[in-house]
Amino acid sequence: MKIRVLKHDLNESIQHVAKAISSRTTIPILTGIKLEVNFQGMTLTASDTDISIQAFIPAEDQEKQIVQVERTGSVVLPAKFFVEIIKKLPSNEIEMEVGEGFKTQIRSGSTDIQMVGLDPEEFPVLPNIEENQVISIPGDLLKNMIKQTVFSISTNESSPILTGVLWNLSDNQFKFVATDRHRLASRTAGLDDAEGVRFSNIVISGKTLNELSKIVPDQNTRVDIVVADNQVLFKIDRVLFYTRILDGTYPDTSKIIPTTYKTELVLDTKKLSESIDRAYLMSREEKTNIVRLQTLENGTIEISSSSSELGKVTEQLDLAEFTGDPLRISFNSKYMLDVLKVVESEQLHIGFTGAMSPIIIKPVDDSQSLYLILPYRTTN
Amino acid sequence: MKIRVLKHDLNESIQHVAKAISSRTTIPILTGIKLEVNFQGMTLTASDTDISIQAFIPAEDQEKQIVQVERTGSVVLPAKFFVEIIKKLPSNEIEMEVGEGFKTQIRSGSTDIQMVGLDPEEFPVLPNIEENQVISIPGDLLKNMIKQTVFSISTNESSPILTGVLWNLSDNQFKFVATDRHRLASRTAGLDDAEGVRFSNIVISGKTLNELSKIVPDQNTRVDIVVADNQVLFKIDRVLFYTRILDGTYPDTSKIIPTTYKTELVLDTKKLSESIDRAYLMSREEKTNIVRLQTLENGTIEISSSSSELGKVTEQLDLAEFTGDPLRISFNSKYMLDVLKVVESEQLHIGFTGAMSPIIIKPVDDSQSLYLILPYRTTN
Repeated sequence: MKIRVLKHDLNESIQHVAKAISSRTTIPILTGIKLEVNFQGMTLTASDTDISIQAFIPAEDQEKQIVQVERTGSVVLPAKFFVEIIKKLPSNEIEMEVGEGFKTQIRSGSTDIQMVGLDPEEFPVLPNIEENQVISIPGDLLKNMIKQTVFSISTNESSPILTGVLWNLSDNQFKFVATDRHRLASRTAGLDDAEGVRFSNIVISGKTLNELSKIVPDQNTRVDIVVADNQVLFKIDRVLFYTRILDGTYPDTSKIIPTTYKTELVLDTKKLSESIDRAYLMSREEKTNIVRLQTLENGTIEISSSSSELGKVTEQLDLAEFTGDPLRISFNSKYMLDVLKVVESEQLHIGFTGAMSPIIIKPVDDSQSLYLILPYRTTN
Repeated sequence: MKIRVLKHDLNESIQHVAKAISSRTTIPILTGIKLEVNFQGMTLTASDTDISIQAFIPAEDQEKQIVQVERTGSVVLPAKFFVEIIKKLPSNEIEMEVGEGFKTQIRSGSTDIQMVGLDPEEFPVLPNIEENQVISIPGDLLKNMIKQTVFSISTNESSPILTGVLWNLSDNQFKFVATDRHRLASRTAGLDDAEGVRFSNIVISGKTLNELSKIVPDQNTRVDIVVADNQVLFKIDRVLFYTRILDGTYPDTSKIIPTTYKTELVLDTKKLSESIDRAYLMSREEKTNIVRLQTLENGTIEISSSSSELGKVTEQLDLAEFTGDPLRISFNSKYMLDVLKVVESEQLHIGFTGAMSPIIIKPVDDSQSLYLILPYRTTN
């Protein structure tokens, strides 16, 4: 392998695939990035066995030469050093040449680097994915759906299935659900061209979805998603992102979501958020994060929290609407803040069916999101 | 104590004094900020016994009322919660009232906070400083002198005196020196109005100087420095910053700095910095950070480093000037990068007196800074 490549393009692809490198791997070949060159261009691959990322740099793009191939070939280079050195090279042109025993020479300006390379034959082969089930989704929508659900996954490895986000697709309705047994987030989106595609119980690691989000550009990108037997493949421009589907059956959460309420409030998202945030500061000192919400007779609500050592915060908040019974309920303010951070609607609808029943939060102008928080049982 | 105060001004003063709060203190009263109100305004004080910071908020500033005093008095409030809640209050006006047993009520908009306060009589009294030795220095110059020396202090608590920066003043020349026995940084500045003031062996904790730097505004401020027996007081606008002087005698470093050289180089600071940075990336893998510098026959230098596992980086660098003997020397590249980060001159002068003798780095257009790095003894 002997090439010249533009630093900017090589660096961009390296940054993408490097997200698959795990610092904790014990398999030496997986600490590296595989480079493969043919006359079409250069392909970079990295993998931690759970996820694999592949990026392609075309030899030519819009009549601009990006990779000049003198000799095809491949090599695996140690990722950590490679990732950092490429972006710091002095010239925008980089020469790479792989010699005997995969020794690799990198030249740029008056910098000359000799790197110990590894045998690309040892690098794991990417899964072969059958492209029967394919959907296409705007990149910003996918990122939003991830952001609005992934915070509710469990971080407890003792129930691995809950560390993932559940995906279902039927009747063109693509739905994400995440829960850690104390709270739940769900988000649905209608897809234009998913006719005939349906799947259920596809669970993808929340950590993986966060990594995926970093690779998807904010605007004007469509992501193709291929769902296969035990793998999902995301196609983003010239990047392929493979992840395995988590084993196990996701619990049925449909029954815990109430459909009628005894008390309903509509209120300003930002004002609620700031108010809960102040009460949270006090509740945090008690480690419990307990905040109380109580309806008052004058048609407002009171948000309060207390700490035996510090004191008490009490807030009054106006409501846009209030129907149903008076209420006094306690909950984990951190969970509420997590929801309020990802809600984009100016007003929220909050439904209650009693002090011991789930709290349901919905954006007023968006019927596709739903958040659930279980209340605390408190003595008063 | 009963007052109304503007949030912006209160918050600014809180942020200043909070820098003296240690999260590791075992003395309950020192986890708090003392508030004292008289008809001139409000004074906030915090202390961790090593440093104490006091900020004053005048009742009126430029005909604007900042503190409206209804009843004078004082209280100590738990810092951690107080620091965070004040900036998050909903209105720009804050009411504070201290009641029985130092219970303090804070009101802003529809937020009502009850805080457990402590007895201000328990708060340590600030040291009484005799103002015999006073100098005045522009704030940005003081910050620069700190930045350009403090990185060379020792982090090893077994020689506490070296965790500080040495100050000397004589003949209007104010000098900072820091060393950890492997490297040294020194910076001198001429003061305009320090006639008759002289001191030596004043050593101030590097950590404290970093905290001080954060409080000094970037522009248009003069800092008055009062040097007393075992304390130094900094006066910055309406903030007083007290720190104790470290006990002990700072080692005499004047003899280790060579005054004549066998080899002298002049070269571009930025190019050297980028080149060392690349060699550092490779040397870091060996944990030693060893980089080699070698003069070549064509009047350039070679910068190189190697790692048994990764490979080798070799760089060639042009010189603006080269006089004296050929040279081959090894040093800790991290130490060199630390120097190159704080040097403002476009070109550097580097002087050598042999492969085993200190390396001396000076900015070409600034005779007031000097950096020393001890070389590594290597086998080749």
